[in-house]
Amino acid sequence: MKTPKKIGLFGFGTVGKGFYENLKKHPNLPAIISKVCVKRLDLPRIGHELYFTDNPDELLDDHEIDIIIELIDDPIAAKTYVEKAFLVGKDVISANKKMIGESLNDVHGWHVSYDSRFLYEAAVGGGIPIVHSVDGFLRDQEVTEIRGILNGSSNYILTQMQQNNWSFDKALSDAQLKGFAERNPSLDVSGIDASYKLSILAYHAFGEVSSIKSFEIESIEGVTKEDIKRAKAKGRKVKLVATLKKTDHEIICSVKPESIGPNDELYSVDFENNAVSVETLISGRHVFMGKGAGALPTGSAVLEDLKRLLDGYSYQVSKKVKTVA
Amino acid sequence: MKTPKKIGLFGFGTVGKGFYENLKKHPNLPAIISKVCVKRLDLPRIGHELYFTDNPDELLDDHEIDIIIELIDDPIAAKTYVEKAFLVGKDVISANKKMIGESLNDVHGWHVSYDSRFLYEAAVGGGIPIVHSVDGFLRDQEVTEIRGILNGSSNYILTQMQQNNWSFDKALSDAQLKGFAERNPSLDVSGIDASYKLSILAYHAFGEVSSIKSFEIESIEGVTKEDIKRAKAKGRKVKLVATLKKTDHEIICSVKPESIGPNDELYSVDFENNAVSVETLISGRHVFMGKGAGALPTGSAVLEDLKRLLDGYSYQVSKKVKTVA
Repeated sequence: MKTPKKIGLFGFGTVGKGFYENLKKHPNLPAIISKVCVKRLDLPRIGHELYFTDNPDELLDDHEIDIIIELIDDPIAAKTYVEKAFLVGKDVISANKKMIGESLNDVHGWHVSYDSRFLYEAAVGGGIPIVHSVDGFLRDQEVTEIRGILNGSSNYILTQMQQNNWSFDKALSDAQLKGFAERNPSLDVSGIDASYKLSILAYHAFGEVSSIKSFEIESIEGVTKEDIKRAKAKGRKVKLVATLKKTDHEIICSVKPESIGPNDELYSVDFENNAVSVETLISGRHVFMGKGAGALPTGSAVLEDLKRLLDGYSYQVSKKVKTVA
Repeated sequence: MKTPKKIGLFGFGTVGKGFYENLKKHPNLPAIISKVCVKRLDLPRIGHELYFTDNPDELLDDHEIDIIIELIDDPIAAKTYVEKAFLVGKDVISANKKMIGESLNDVHGWHVSYDSRFLYEAAVGGGIPIVHSVDGFLRDQEVTEIRGILNGSSNYILTQMQQNNWSFDKALSDAQLKGFAERNPSLDVSGIDASYKLSILAYHAFGEVSSIKSFEIESIEGVTKEDIKRAKAKGRKVKLVATLKKTDHEIICSVKPESIGPNDELYSVDFENNAVSVETLISGRHVFMGKGAGALPTGSAVLEDLKRLLDGYSYQVSKKVKTVA
């Protein structure tokens, strides 16, 4: 048995606990959680065998910790921790779509400078292995379009509006009650959350950060009962669709409510599910669907990244300009 | 630049040519086609720079050839070549679903005995990376159900019947004319082809060969215009659905025509497209769709296997009994 790698875990919320539960099911994986940094040490917690602290440096300055797994909400604090982790030579896994989506220039720099062992599958599409697929087996394919349902909360709300003839407000309250939407749902319903994820996919599909020329975003707050009823009468559904189109000169992105028909591959994607369709010149359309949110699916995506790190895998995006040895 | 690996290619039909065209687009990949073995040397061929032979041993006995890529129709000849290739220490890529699906016991033996570098993504679902996904990121997940449309020809026929109100016979002739069905379509329309693919997925999902307790197969030849009309009137479609269900004690497989509704993730999968839905206990349902047939998608799946071989990747199925170091 190899000496297990030591993990410093930031955050023990929904995703953190999901990762912890998933990891427990793989006792033979050569990795253990060494320390967990949380904001509030006074809260009661599962995981009594874990060492908790509220001091980030206890993890970052610990030479025995090999891997930082960052699963907190705050994108600014997250970025500080991740940058410091790279500086002291640690590998990093993150699920922070906001931090990554807003800092793609820096992320690219990290990939280049640190030949980076920086993986973030859980940041896009929950349990769907979409970053890995776009970065990996679709790497050398010419991607012409990416379309998807990338936000579980808004999809849950729209599904409830469709199935129960509810207003947006009523569906939102219900989603919040059931834990499918945050207390502050603005990032989700506005389309901004989906736009972060689309930006991350665009980066991995095209290998450049600055290629997006226009980004149109429209909230689902404007979707009325009548819109849904009209769509339903035609056998259609209203979905928050994120689209990226590549032309010769530019990349155009949008996230907005659209009415789609039953022959659309996104039609069957209901509730908190996500889906991504990747159109390529050579091998046609690839569609990936799965649970877009939730402790276990997202925690499982973090665990997959951990296995990839242990296997020596790293993203290929910074080698996008083809210089295969 | 590394010394390129030398490839011995068996077969230069649709998939072989698709692979050749795909490989040409990646001049930096450290692999070159050294020799091609075909049945008929007298046919005119693209690829004038290639060396053609009709003698299999010219490839198998050539010590400079590192990798055998087997893309012929005949499953018996294919098996002979693959077995000999392993004996003389070569790596193998195959797209032969019939050979693999019918010989899973042997395939398992090869994986175990040769710590095998034997990849066959193109045997299931054309361009969809489904073997890689089930063997890879779904490896440690408990798979409870696999459902899919696994045969492009029969899906093409059913789509045409649905869209044009054609009979099975008319749709079959049309598919043959357009190159979407073989002259002898019996393996495709009977469901047997899909059953090979389902068996391969079952093997990678569960790591045992003999676990399938019952296998029900029903041809689409019995699907009438009236069946289609009845489904259509209810907003449904008839699809040849391959299903694998795991209970505590056994695995049950079937391939048969089913009427499915618009909320089914297989509903939007028309023409030669394929899709596979994998249900897991923890991370929910994962659906993969893409082109299930055709020279370029399938050739591209072969190329992906080649890249994986060059990266040192091998299937993990023979390590399914978990003994992570």
